[in-house]
Amino acid sequence: MTDRELLEKIASLIQEKKFSFLRNFMLEMQAVDISEIFEDLTIEETVIIYRLLPKQAATDVFVNMSTEKQEELINSFSDYELKQVIDDLYVDDTVDLIEEMPATVVKRILRNASPQTRQTVNELLKYPETSAGSIMTTEYVSLKQSMTVGEAFAHLRKVALDKETVYTCYVTDFKRQLIGLVTVKDLLSSNDDAIIEDIMEQNVIYAYTLDDREQVSRLLDKYSYLALPVVDNEQRLVGIITVDDAIEVLHEETEEDFAKMAAITPTEKPYLRMGVLDIWKSRIPWLLILMISATFTGIIISGFESALQGLAVLTIFIPMLMDTGGNSGSQASVTVIRGISLGEIEFKDVLKVMWKEFRVSILCGVALSVTAFFKIILIDRLLMGNEDVTVTVAAVVCITLLFTVFVAKLIGCTLPVIAKKIGFDPAVMASPFITTIVDAISLLVYFGVASSFLNF
Amino acid sequence: MTDRELLEKIASLIQEKKFSFLRNFMLEMQAVDISEIFEDLTIEETVIIYRLLPKQAATDVFVNMSTEKQEELINSFSDYELKQVIDDLYVDDTVDLIEEMPATVVKRILRNASPQTRQTVNELLKYPETSAGSIMTTEYVSLKQSMTVGEAFAHLRKVALDKETVYTCYVTDFKRQLIGLVTVKDLLSSNDDAIIEDIMEQNVIYAYTLDDREQVSRLLDKYSYLALPVVDNEQRLVGIITVDDAIEVLHEETEEDFAKMAAITPTEKPYLRMGVLDIWKSRIPWLLILMISATFTGIIISGFESALQGLAVLTIFIPMLMDTGGNSGSQASVTVIRGISLGEIEFKDVLKVMWKEFRVSILCGVALSVTAFFKIILIDRLLMGNEDVTVTVAAVVCITLLFTVFVAKLIGCTLPVIAKKIGFDPAVMASPFITTIVDAISLLVYFGVASSFLNF
Repeated sequence: MTDRELLEKIASLIQEKKFSFLRNFMLEMQAVDISEIFEDLTIEETVIIYRLLPKQAATDVFVNMSTEKQEELINSFSDYELKQVIDDLYVDDTVDLIEEMPATVVKRILRNASPQTRQTVNELLKYPETSAGSIMTTEYVSLKQSMTVGEAFAHLRKVALDKETVYTCYVTDFKRQLIGLVTVKDLLSSNDDAIIEDIMEQNVIYAYTLDDREQVSRLLDKYSYLALPVVDNEQRLVGIITVDDAIEVLHEETEEDFAKMAAITPTEKPYLRMGVLDIWKSRIPWLLILMISATFTGIIISGFESALQGLAVLTIFIPMLMDTGGNSGSQASVTVIRGISLGEIEFKDVLKVMWKEFRVSILCGVALSVTAFFKIILIDRLLMGNEDVTVTVAAVVCITLLFTVFVAKLIGCTLPVIAKKIGFDPAVMASPFITTIVDAISLLVYFGVASSFLNF
Repeated sequence: MTDRELLEKIASLIQEKKFSFLRNFMLEMQAVDISEIFEDLTIEETVIIYRLLPKQAATDVFVNMSTEKQEELINSFSDYELKQVIDDLYVDDTVDLIEEMPATVVKRILRNASPQTRQTVNELLKYPETSAGSIMTTEYVSLKQSMTVGEAFAHLRKVALDKETVYTCYVTDFKRQLIGLVTVKDLLSSNDDAIIEDIMEQNVIYAYTLDDREQVSRLLDKYSYLALPVVDNEQRLVGIITVDDAIEVLHEETEEDFAKMAAITPTEKPYLRMGVLDIWKSRIPWLLILMISATFTGIIISGFESALQGLAVLTIFIPMLMDTGGNSGSQASVTVIRGISLGEIEFKDVLKVMWKEFRVSILCGVALSVTAFFKIILIDRLLMGNEDVTVTVAAVVCITLLFTVFVAKLIGCTLPVIAKKIGFDPAVMASPFITTIVDAISLLVYFGVASSFLNF
């Protein structure tokens, strides 16, 4: 069934009021898929189907919906319905929801939350948006070191339903300080009378509430954990970050890097759901900034305008020099930017990186220059029969090329590291900016070299 | 302790033969961290520490090491040691290992594997490298529908240690066909005498062995599963893909997209560990191809060389036009390429995408042209005092700009979709290629417009 057929089927089932059939039809789908379908339904249709779903399924669908749809749905909820959803949501999902909703909706959500949920939510909301605290949940399983495996299982069976993940259990002492962890797999592999203290892993990797959420997510990814414990300044366990939230954070950061490297202001909405004006707004500022910075290259050419009048042949190679410089620069900058994002390259590596790029740029520059020389003589001079393209002109182009590649690679690898060091986003230092800088430098070199070798 | 201090400490502990201290020191670290340290140690030091580690820890470290280090280590293993590692590895990790090792090492590995492992490995090796089968493991937990929860737990406790993940159990019938799944959380939330059939989830998302591994990994990510079952053509369960392997696949694909968009041949090695020659090899082919394709723009300019002789002022705006065209094009292409990679944009959306980019390009083009017009008159003509920059020249530049942005966006959004459709990699159609094409078109338009309006 295509998407369109599916939507038509649902619409007709609603119109014919075949609700029990519709309910069973929807229940054969995954929550994620139902929430995707909701995006293409009217709010009236959405509400009808939402009310047909069993409570847990409805909540699962709700969590996966877009912010816009969640807001529409909440606005059509009775207070009783809203209360049910908030009761069922895991507390970190409630926090996510509140962070996205307008103030009036937030007030209604908090009014309908239980006092305990309200208190936890308010505490979690205090953490800065980029901190580990902001993505953690307080619904984890904690065990005492003196428990037996049998007692641990009994405890797990009591609390399992209410916890977001039960597969990693954290062991805390009487001061609530984190002292170890056991996985359910460890528990399953041990005898019922084994003591938790004896089987727990004591070297636990953890994060502080105020740690950067991206770095913490990368930690979780690095060690392939299902969850990572978060402690406060007194080493007391206050929450956990689950793998799905960590992957979400890393996913967002990656897509932001892609956007910034293409000179786009990142947005969270999928492209096909974005309005034309939103797309325009995310793109036009950078296009304008970059266009205006190209004024410098224009000024450089202006300065040599009368010389170019006599030697227009030099113009032929401007695009090639600029493009090759730009490409060489982005190769270096994108590599370094991703290295920084993935935590592989730090400021202390800057000299190592420069030395590497220095050698790569010499190799690339020589290969390109030699090829360009033969290409210019063979194609531009002999094949195309342009006699203005002399051997000297070819030499001027190739010397410029060598220098351009060298400068492009060095700027490309250095700028992102420096940007990161002084607190800017390295990804913004990607191709478009590097290109603009390299353009100006390569033109200066081009005309400089030309005036030494030619009557320019 | 910095990395350097850590390495010095380890080296000195080895030299002073303080092995039991060294062993405890290493055991306080995570396996992933130990394998990172190994990368900076000599093979002699690596072997010494490796032999100090307990069997399970040693295997965990081994799995996380780089291919080069794994090969070195295997070459210094006795057959007995190699046998132990192979016994302890999960079968999908053994397959990964074999896929990376040279033929002689592979022979040694297979000779030292148990007959059963050897058979499973050989079966898994038959799946194409890009298939779901190639990343699955056969070590999953399967339950019968007639079992009680209590019996399921008893079974789990027997097999837990040998299975890569136990948290999702798959229910199969007498023909080994997949009929449902239960999570350990479901089991923990049910009574011991509940029957699996009654609590299992029946709408199971699964993959076929020959499905594309990237698409399957994206499925696992979409539904936030810890594992995804893989069936053969007769719907028989043959393996599972675990979340860590799926994330690894998606991670590789993302980094490949970054590399291709920056005109780099993707490699799996981290930048700082790559040799200068390897970096050069991954970059120079694209630089050469792109440089030589710039010949077209050169030829176009050649054709107008004598006209430019008289009107060199037009040269001033070539870099700005080219850069803005390139940036506009990459904004569209990178957005669409990521949309395709994430499965958000398909071929059937091509008209929707083009219509969207058409409207965005008009908005961007008008904003850029109007700004450029004032900028040219105010800065280039009045501020810089270049009297060759007439209002007509400004108009020619702005008309070209409008058209360039339009063409760039349309080519940028269309090429990746078409590339995907005819079986090419959309990511290769990113910025550098689009730039080259847009350069040529914008120059043609520029000179075309110029000859209608100016004495050119």
